[in-house]
Amino acid sequence: MTASGRATRQASVVVRRCAELAGISSEPGRTTRVHLSPEHLRVNDVVGGWMREAGLAVHVDAVGNLHGRLAPTAAGPEDAPVRTLLLGSHLDTVVDAGRYDGVVGVLMALATVERLVADGTALPFALEVVAFTDEEGTRFGTALLGSSAVAGHWDDAWWDLVDADGTTLREASVAAGLDPALVGTAALDPTTLVGYLEAHIEQAPHLDEAGRALGVVTGIAGARRFVVDVTGEARHAGGTPFARRRDALLAAAEAALAVERTCRERDQIGTVGTLTVAPGAVNVVPGRARFSVDLRGETDAGRDAAWDAVTAELDAIAARRGVTVAVRQVHEAGAVRCADRMREAVRAGVLATGDATPAALFSRAGHDAMALAAVTDVGMLFLRNPDGTSHHPDEHVAEADVALGLDALAAAVVHLASEDGGSGR
Amino acid sequence: MTASGRATRQASVVVRRCAELAGISSEPGRTTRVHLSPEHLRVNDVVGGWMREAGLAVHVDAVGNLHGRLAPTAAGPEDAPVRTLLLGSHLDTVVDAGRYDGVVGVLMALATVERLVADGTALPFALEVVAFTDEEGTRFGTALLGSSAVAGHWDDAWWDLVDADGTTLREASVAAGLDPALVGTAALDPTTLVGYLEAHIEQAPHLDEAGRALGVVTGIAGARRFVVDVTGEARHAGGTPFARRRDALLAAAEAALAVERTCRERDQIGTVGTLTVAPGAVNVVPGRARFSVDLRGETDAGRDAAWDAVTAELDAIAARRGVTVAVRQVHEAGAVRCADRMREAVRAGVLATGDATPAALFSRAGHDAMALAAVTDVGMLFLRNPDGTSHHPDEHVAEADVALGLDALAAAVVHLASEDGGSGR
Repeated sequence: MTASGRATRQASVVVRRCAELAGISSEPGRTTRVHLSPEHLRVNDVVGGWMREAGLAVHVDAVGNLHGRLAPTAAGPEDAPVRTLLLGSHLDTVVDAGRYDGVVGVLMALATVERLVADGTALPFALEVVAFTDEEGTRFGTALLGSSAVAGHWDDAWWDLVDADGTTLREASVAAGLDPALVGTAALDPTTLVGYLEAHIEQAPHLDEAGRALGVVTGIAGARRFVVDVTGEARHAGGTPFARRRDALLAAAEAALAVERTCRERDQIGTVGTLTVAPGAVNVVPGRARFSVDLRGETDAGRDAAWDAVTAELDAIAARRGVTVAVRQVHEAGAVRCADRMREAVRAGVLATGDATPAALFSRAGHDAMALAAVTDVGMLFLRNPDGTSHHPDEHVAEADVALGLDALAAAVVHLASEDGGSGR
Repeated sequence: MTASGRATRQASVVVRRCAELAGISSEPGRTTRVHLSPEHLRVNDVVGGWMREAGLAVHVDAVGNLHGRLAPTAAGPEDAPVRTLLLGSHLDTVVDAGRYDGVVGVLMALATVERLVADGTALPFALEVVAFTDEEGTRFGTALLGSSAVAGHWDDAWWDLVDADGTTLREASVAAGLDPALVGTAALDPTTLVGYLEAHIEQAPHLDEAGRALGVVTGIAGARRFVVDVTGEARHAGGTPFARRRDALLAAAEAALAVERTCRERDQIGTVGTLTVAPGAVNVVPGRARFSVDLRGETDAGRDAAWDAVTAELDAIAARRGVTVAVRQVHEAGAVRCADRMREAVRAGVLATGDATPAALFSRAGHDAMALAAVTDVGMLFLRNPDGTSHHPDEHVAEADVALGLDALAAAVVHLASEDGGSGR
């Protein structure tokens, strides 16, 4: 497959812009750009400028998402309000991030609108490029803040979330010139939405292993996250016989291995990403340990069954080691299914690139589409990610794959326009 | 067994003084007293005052140990230099310590000298109560600094040890009014030493389990400490299949469990007390982990064989999980054997309390006696510690056991005097 000449030229711009945005960071030499940081506001300015150059009407909503809108270029159904197809992804990053996660999807959305405008493609709905903020949840610990606001699913308790410096989300928002009282204005009316289409690098190696540049996303794994506190007893390392120990670290070690074993057996995804130990002295048996569990699966049922198995293991470990285990769920997102019509549009896009048998796969990582799915049909296009590396400076996507993705995305929008019966959802 | 009336009265003072010193802390409500802290200098002043009240000649040596000396009260061998029996323990603490570890031994040494003076006991050697500093190594990470200086085994590299605030040992010493250039003057001439006798709470439950108040220490376990760095690869938790992961935390978890299993099988003591993970994010597979291993055994050979078995397991884990493991030894102390004549003196002391079959046991914890053993004979008396709790605010010793210990310690000194042939060592 070879991309069109225009897509190839556009891909070059997209990749160059990804590099430019990677330099807008709170850390020299690394890319870190968290919600409402100076870098976030700066990147909104820069991308907003590119949107204006493309002829879009630009605004930043009440929570900090950047929007660029193109009015319909063809008549819609009579007497119907103007409807909107959302195209987007996010501009925030994890700490020491790669340059493509989220960013490439935003810039591809913008390039797609530019191309459709240049082609004079008649579209019976508006196109709105949304550059979401805080998909990662890096600063305040809660992900999908920006897309949740757009979906109208804001939780006012979030205003009191606190970052590592003790700043609340409310304080940070006010300092950034946003008005928390207006959060409701960020919500889009679901009845006016055609759907949400997102291009994103795959954050796994499945497309690469299959030798495919592009993939049609069938759904997004649901995630549950837990904090587990293990309490044993801190004692002198020299003087405490094994039989007397209630070692919180060893209990946590067994638990982490149980998460791995259980998830492997059940084809789920489970990760212990953090672990801290107290008192944390070389000569003291650890009295407390705290670790996180991140659990994902293609279906909620499969994932929840794995968690039930893990908790049974936790109970057994606690009983055997004389420790207590307290589990707190800190995040839950149901698995999301991409709507048939959106999958069909993305598939039509991939077919248009010359791939006669488009790969279909589910996303192991979370995306803004999860929040949007609560109010509109969502579809996602994945770009091949060599080795699947993400959340890391080595994250990479080939410019040629971006070009193919641009051809696919434009064709997907055209497909939706051709199918459009004016029904919204 | 019942202690003498005098020992019972003295034990009451000792226990009260332990409570008083516990309040000299850098943290309100907890006992934390590290080397050369204002609290350390204050506790030296307070105990130095008690030493003076008891008629001892008091000085603080070049590294911060407090000494109180009583000249011989009987003639020694003709033409021989004055010889000295050292009695002591330490006054520094771990973070959030109990009130008896070290402290009770210093105060019992002082009470024993007071008693022998009051009794007019003729001693052919001087008695010197030494209150060592920095037995625990809490501030600078290296233990036995004070007793190593007295043993003349100072390592000048230690001056560059750095505390958590970046202060070097040299800087802290100068700020405390000590002169690093005079460190050699803290070393005692081994040829003048009769030996070193230390009373200490057991930091294990063996005496308690055996129903004994006192125990004769046969030796001190050797310790080796290691820092192990595991390097895998940080990757997106959602998108990385298990087969592609090189999870440093899971490797460390297996390693910690291998330390436990190996040491249990071989009757050694092994502890992983610290473990940190990087990057330490809920949704990132850990790329790095670092943990400590503290390994002890009654003999060096047994301990070292256990470590060899652990390192073989580390290699196997690394190979299986695709991580690298780097091991650095940060501490090594050979197992120490208490000299027969000192054990005999301590045994005579315990017999004097009415215990016809004194318990003999080795110490799983390190003590200042380890450093002194390099230059003189050492002996130790252990006091029962209910449940063995130490390095914890719940650390406890019964006043009645302190009283029995005081009777034993005085009798041990008298035994040494009666056996004394003037030979020093």
